[in-house]
Amino acid sequence: MPPTRVGFIGLKPSTDGSLLGSWGVRGHLRSIQGLPSLYEIVAIANSTVESSQKSIEVHKLPTTTNAYGNAEDLAADPNVELVVISVEVRKHYELAMPALKHKKDVFVEWPMAASVKEAEELTKVAKENGVRTMVGLQGRYDPLVQKVREILAEGKIGKIMSSTVTACSSVLPVETWLKDLEFYLDFNSGGNEYTIFMGHFLDSFTYLLGDFASVHGLLASQYPTVIIIDPATGQIVNPAYPKTAPEHIFITGTLESSAVASLAFRKPKSAADRVGFRWYITGTEGEIAITTEEGSWQGGGIREKRKISLKVGKADSVDVGFGKDDTTLAEKVAFPATNTARQYEAFAARDGEVITFEDALRNHRLLQRIANSSGWEMM
Amino acid sequence: MPPTRVGFIGLKPSTDGSLLGSWGVRGHLRSIQGLPSLYEIVAIANSTVESSQKSIEVHKLPTTTNAYGNAEDLAADPNVELVVISVEVRKHYELAMPALKHKKDVFVEWPMAASVKEAEELTKVAKENGVRTMVGLQGRYDPLVQKVREILAEGKIGKIMSSTVTACSSVLPVETWLKDLEFYLDFNSGGNEYTIFMGHFLDSFTYLLGDFASVHGLLASQYPTVIIIDPATGQIVNPAYPKTAPEHIFITGTLESSAVASLAFRKPKSAADRVGFRWYITGTEGEIAITTEEGSWQGGGIREKRKISLKVGKADSVDVGFGKDDTTLAEKVAFPATNTARQYEAFAARDGEVITFEDALRNHRLLQRIANSSGWEMM
Repeated sequence: MPPTRVGFIGLKPSTDGSLLGSWGVRGHLRSIQGLPSLYEIVAIANSTVESSQKSIEVHKLPTTTNAYGNAEDLAADPNVELVVISVEVRKHYELAMPALKHKKDVFVEWPMAASVKEAEELTKVAKENGVRTMVGLQGRYDPLVQKVREILAEGKIGKIMSSTVTACSSVLPVETWLKDLEFYLDFNSGGNEYTIFMGHFLDSFTYLLGDFASVHGLLASQYPTVIIIDPATGQIVNPAYPKTAPEHIFITGTLESSAVASLAFRKPKSAADRVGFRWYITGTEGEIAITTEEGSWQGGGIREKRKISLKVGKADSVDVGFGKDDTTLAEKVAFPATNTARQYEAFAARDGEVITFEDALRNHRLLQRIANSSGWEMM
Repeated sequence: MPPTRVGFIGLKPSTDGSLLGSWGVRGHLRSIQGLPSLYEIVAIANSTVESSQKSIEVHKLPTTTNAYGNAEDLAADPNVELVVISVEVRKHYELAMPALKHKKDVFVEWPMAASVKEAEELTKVAKENGVRTMVGLQGRYDPLVQKVREILAEGKIGKIMSSTVTACSSVLPVETWLKDLEFYLDFNSGGNEYTIFMGHFLDSFTYLLGDFASVHGLLASQYPTVIIIDPATGQIVNPAYPKTAPEHIFITGTLESSAVASLAFRKPKSAADRVGFRWYITGTEGEIAITTEEGSWQGGGIREKRKISLKVGKADSVDVGFGKDDTTLAEKVAFPATNTARQYEAFAARDGEVITFEDALRNHRLLQRIANSSGWEMM
C-alpha cells in the first residue's frame, strides 16, 4: 500500500511554543514524519494560504504540498485521503465538518469537540458519509495500558472489586499561564484541565475497566485567578485572569461491572512524593498498582519512571515489565509523539484498534455526566 | 494526686484472643498497668461475679479489687471514680448509663454507641450529671497526627486546598472471620469496618482539617459472604455468613474550610504497595504526604513504618521526624496500647486534650451523614 495522503489542519509555522499550543507539530507532525511508509502530508490548511506556505517551508515539507487558506478547500482536494485536525478544540467542529462531507477520513485530536452536542453531530455526519474516524486519545496505546489490559484479561487478580486513582496535575503550572492559551482555564471552552488532563485518563480508565453505571463528581477551582504571561516578552499581561475550570476533580461511582471506583485529581505546585498517577485495580485475588512520574498520562512519559506492580494473594509484589519487546514502527518515534504514532500505525493497519468518534463521544458524555452530577453544568 | 480509682467493664478472664475481641486487655488494661502513678483498678464488672473474680485472678489484680456481676453494682461502688467500658459496642449504652447516673466519670471505647440516638442520649445524661467523659479515639494522640497538626498550624503549606486519602483495610482478613465477632460484619451492629476502621481515621481527619460542609458517600460490600471459623477448634462453623457491612468506602466532600476531600478505603487481600494509609494534605504553598504500613490507623503501628513527607513549593520533600523527643509516661507503654495510654495520661492531666462524648457524637453523626448520603440508612 502507498502511504496515506494527509491534509493537515493545525500545523503552525514554527517549531517552538508550549506543548499544549504546538501539539500539531510535536504530536502529529512528528508521528507522520516518523512513519514515512504509512503517511505523507500532501496539503496544509492554516487560516491563510500564506501561513500554510510558511508552514510548508518551516517544516521542510515537499514543495508539491498544497497550501490552503481554509478547511473547505483542503477537504475538496481530491488528493487528500485523511484530514488531520489538531487545533484549539473550539474550532474542531467547523474544521472537521467539511472533511466529513467530502467523505475524507478524519483524525481529530482529543477533545473531539467543544460540547457533547457538537461531538454527536460530528459522529452522525461521519456515519452518514461512511468515513473512518479517529480521535487522539493516545493513552490507550501506551504499552503500560496494554500490559495492564493483558493482566486483567488473564484473570490474575480475579474479579475486579474496585479501582482507586490519585492523580496530580502539577506538571502544568499552577499560578501562571500563557497568553493565547487562556481557553485551558475556562470551564466552557471545552479544552481545559477537566476535559484534557482528566479526559485523557478517563478514557484509559474506562477502556480497561468499563463504563460507569452511576457516577458522582465533585469539581473545584481552588485557584480563583491565574497570572497570564506573554511568552514572547515574558511580561505579565493579566495579573488576575479568572480561572473557571476545575483543577480538583473527585469522582466516585459504580462501574457496569459492579466494581466501585474513586478518582481523585488534585493540583499542588508539585507532588510531595513526585508521583503523577497512582492507580490501584483491586480484585478478589490480587491487586495491580500503577505509578507514574508527574506528567501527562497520554504522553507516556519516561518508561523507567512508570511502573506496574502486581500482587497476587499475599505473595510479594512483582514489577511487571512492558513495552520492551515492542517491534512497532511507532516505538521508534520519540516522546512525546510515540503514543500518537502508535495510533497512526493502528489506523493504517486497518485491523488495528482505532478510537473512533463513537468511542470519543462516550468519553465526552461521561465527562458531561460527571460535571452535571457535581453541579457544574456542561454543554 | 493519688491514682484515679477505676471500675473496669470489659476485662475478659483471658490474655489471648484477637485484637478486636480483647481490646479491653490489650488496649485499656495495658494502659492502666503502664500508668500506675495515675490509675489503679479497684473494681471489675463482668456478666457474673465469678467471671469478674476470675479476671482479677488471671490479670493478677490486687485481691482487694471488688468483683461485680453487673454495671449497676459497679457504678454504685463509692470507691470507683472512673468507669472504663471496652466491650462490644451494642452494650456500651446500657453499661455506661448507670455510671453516668451515679456521677462517675466515664471512658468508653470507640464506637461510643451503636447508634446516633444512643450516643445523643449518653451525651445528654453525661452533661446533666456534670461528669467528665472520654471516648477511645486514640488516633488523635499519635505523635504523627500531632506533628501534622503542628506543621499545619505553622502554615508551612499555605491555605489548605484539598486532602486526598487512599487506605487499605487488608490488615483485617478478607475471606474468613472469627466466631462471636460476627458483629464486625454486620452493618447494623454499630461496630464494623465502617464505624471502626473508617471511624477511627475519620476522627483524625476532621481533627486536623475540620468538619465536612457537604459530603457524599459510596459504600459497597464486595465480599457478600465470609467463612466463620471457631478460633477454639479451627473449624468452619459457617461457610457463608452474609456480610452486610461495607469494606469499600469512598467519600468526597467539601470541608467547612472550603477545601475539598476525597477518601477511598478499599480491601484487597494485601495492598500491592504494602501501604495501609496514604494521606495527602495539599496547600497553596506545599504538600504533606503521610504514609503508613498496612495496619490500623489508631494503634500507631511501627513508627519506622510511618512517614511524614513535607514538600514546600518545588523544593525536594523532606521527611519530618515525630515523637522522638516524647517524654510522656505513655510513650513507655508498649504497642498496641501506646496511644490509648496517651489518652489516659491526657485525661489525668486535666488540662490535657480529651475526646469527650460531644466530640465522639460529632464523629457518629458524620458517619451517619455519609452512610445516608450513599443510600445506606444508618441508625
